[in-house]
Amino acid sequence: MRVADLPTPALVVDTAALTHNLDTMTAALPGARLRPHVKAHKCTALAREQALRGHGGFTGATPRELLGLAREGLGEDLLLANQSVDDARLRALATSGARVTVAVDSEATIDAAVRAGIGEVLIDVNVGMPRCGVPADQAGTLADLARARGLTVRGTMGYEGHAVGVSDRAERTKLTAQSMAVLARAAEAVGGDVVSAGGTGTYDINETATEIQAGSYALMDTAYAELGLPFRHALAIVATVIHANPRWSVADCGLKALAMDHGNPTIADARVLFCSDEHVTFTPETPVAVGDRVLVRPAHVDPTVAYHEAFHLADGAGLDAEVVDRWAVDLRGWNDGE
Amino acid sequence: MRVADLPTPALVVDTAALTHNLDTMTAALPGARLRPHVKAHKCTALAREQALRGHGGFTGATPRELLGLAREGLGEDLLLANQSVDDARLRALATSGARVTVAVDSEATIDAAVRAGIGEVLIDVNVGMPRCGVPADQAGTLADLARARGLTVRGTMGYEGHAVGVSDRAERTKLTAQSMAVLARAAEAVGGDVVSAGGTGTYDINETATEIQAGSYALMDTAYAELGLPFRHALAIVATVIHANPRWSVADCGLKALAMDHGNPTIADARVLFCSDEHVTFTPETPVAVGDRVLVRPAHVDPTVAYHEAFHLADGAGLDAEVVDRWAVDLRGWNDGE
Repeated sequence: MRVADLPTPALVVDTAALTHNLDTMTAALPGARLRPHVKAHKCTALAREQALRGHGGFTGATPRELLGLAREGLGEDLLLANQSVDDARLRALATSGARVTVAVDSEATIDAAVRAGIGEVLIDVNVGMPRCGVPADQAGTLADLARARGLTVRGTMGYEGHAVGVSDRAERTKLTAQSMAVLARAAEAVGGDVVSAGGTGTYDINETATEIQAGSYALMDTAYAELGLPFRHALAIVATVIHANPRWSVADCGLKALAMDHGNPTIADARVLFCSDEHVTFTPETPVAVGDRVLVRPAHVDPTVAYHEAFHLADGAGLDAEVVDRWAVDLRGWNDGE
Repeated sequence: MRVADLPTPALVVDTAALTHNLDTMTAALPGARLRPHVKAHKCTALAREQALRGHGGFTGATPRELLGLAREGLGEDLLLANQSVDDARLRALATSGARVTVAVDSEATIDAAVRAGIGEVLIDVNVGMPRCGVPADQAGTLADLARARGLTVRGTMGYEGHAVGVSDRAERTKLTAQSMAVLARAAEAVGGDVVSAGGTGTYDINETATEIQAGSYALMDTAYAELGLPFRHALAIVATVIHANPRWSVADCGLKALAMDHGNPTIADARVLFCSDEHVTFTPETPVAVGDRVLVRPAHVDPTVAYHEAFHLADGAGLDAEVVDRWAVDLRGWNDGE
């Protein structure tokens, strides 16, 4: 089956681009220097490709993501890079057979880890983005508290999320350096040998982290593409033209197939006007006809993937490429068995 | 179990508000005057509530939505208010045992209906929004073509999507009247006894349509709430506070639990700053603590629901309300069996 024959809308992965991206990152950050973040793809088959390249540790944003990895035998060293006070889900992780480390940034999250039988933690430090993380000057005290409760503190974590998407490289570098100076100060107070940070936008800039939590590099999106990184677009959504007139055309890929938090998707040689629930209205440079297929590139890959059941692996980038495999997006949702 | 005990994030429906919304709409548009649009909730259990109130016909945006209704015995009169040239999916509809009518706006979509064995169509007319629909002055010719190919033309359809969300009622009324004048002209040329149009924003304004395709009224969202309609917020997402500091707090409801095309969600007595994949950062008026639950209201209900597996029906609006039922969001996705 060709890409153009898939029922639409459907996620399509250009395997050559994916392989290029995976190999490029592995060359830059070999082995444990990269702890791939699975929130970007939510797919154990893709995670296995990352593990085969020597990255045995993974990052997740939900207990469900990590539990799914554990079940697929990918539980060598899993990091929940997020706070959780959900006893049942943490307990499921603690008893999964995987090595599980969770981020903590408060007494409440430490208590939750202890209740669940989690043994290892990182102290999550706020390095500039208003989200989770303890202030750097309290990180040492929190680490002492965690140790007093019987937890092993492996080190620190601090995500420079306000820096990773800054398009100017010099500015991105400056912000990252500032953030990592904060994290280094905290790491000194906390102890341990792990300093976990970074993302696709700072993978070759962040020199403080012992491991980089990049995820988007594998598939890429149009938002990250503006940064001039050496990763290619590997993900598109194939859609069918269902309406065409001399002024605009419409394809069947809308708000339920695309995350819109980074704005409209793009279509090559066309201008996207707007999206509705099941439609994208666009003006192509060359007329299209009803039944034609188009490739739609999402602006933000992570929440786009979460709308879909599967990736379709294609032996090339175009509509005529052969579909060679199907990988389930098996880590989506939040509840086991969903 | 109380709402506050649900694993988070989770969709919660206030059954009193839902019942109020359903009953209010049924009083305004009894029986076949309303053809509820299931794209807003993607839930056969909710559709059954609408059917029990006398609305035996349904509108859907995807073949999958209608096939799911047919399987649940809700196939009395199903309208695919969208174009499709997917032979396999249309054939599945045609052989589902349900009465199925599809929208057509081109020779290609007529051909697809014929190939699939669909017997009845509506001529979809563009009434002002740049999406699908044939120009009004070509509607009669297209209807003749459909009849020549053996299809029964039940009438016309034309969605005033550019009007339904206009907050000023006078302006909304004016735009609707203009659109419906176009549709009435087309309907005269097309024939048939169905004129299908409208939405939650124009349900009591549109006087031309014989049936209104409203869907959002059942659950409502913050975008539609600005219109001063008599429908209440019935939908929220319960989330857990996972971080709290004197300047901001964070809960576990982010871009993968919320559609962002209409902007940020809202939290009562709080200001929402931004959302990340699994987080919402907000500043509450009264401090919250880690482990507290908050209710997050999505700006746009339809693509928010599509991220979730189920609605949790609650016997009230607050966090202490009892969860009395669970309804699967069983019409999401595009492929049968997903």
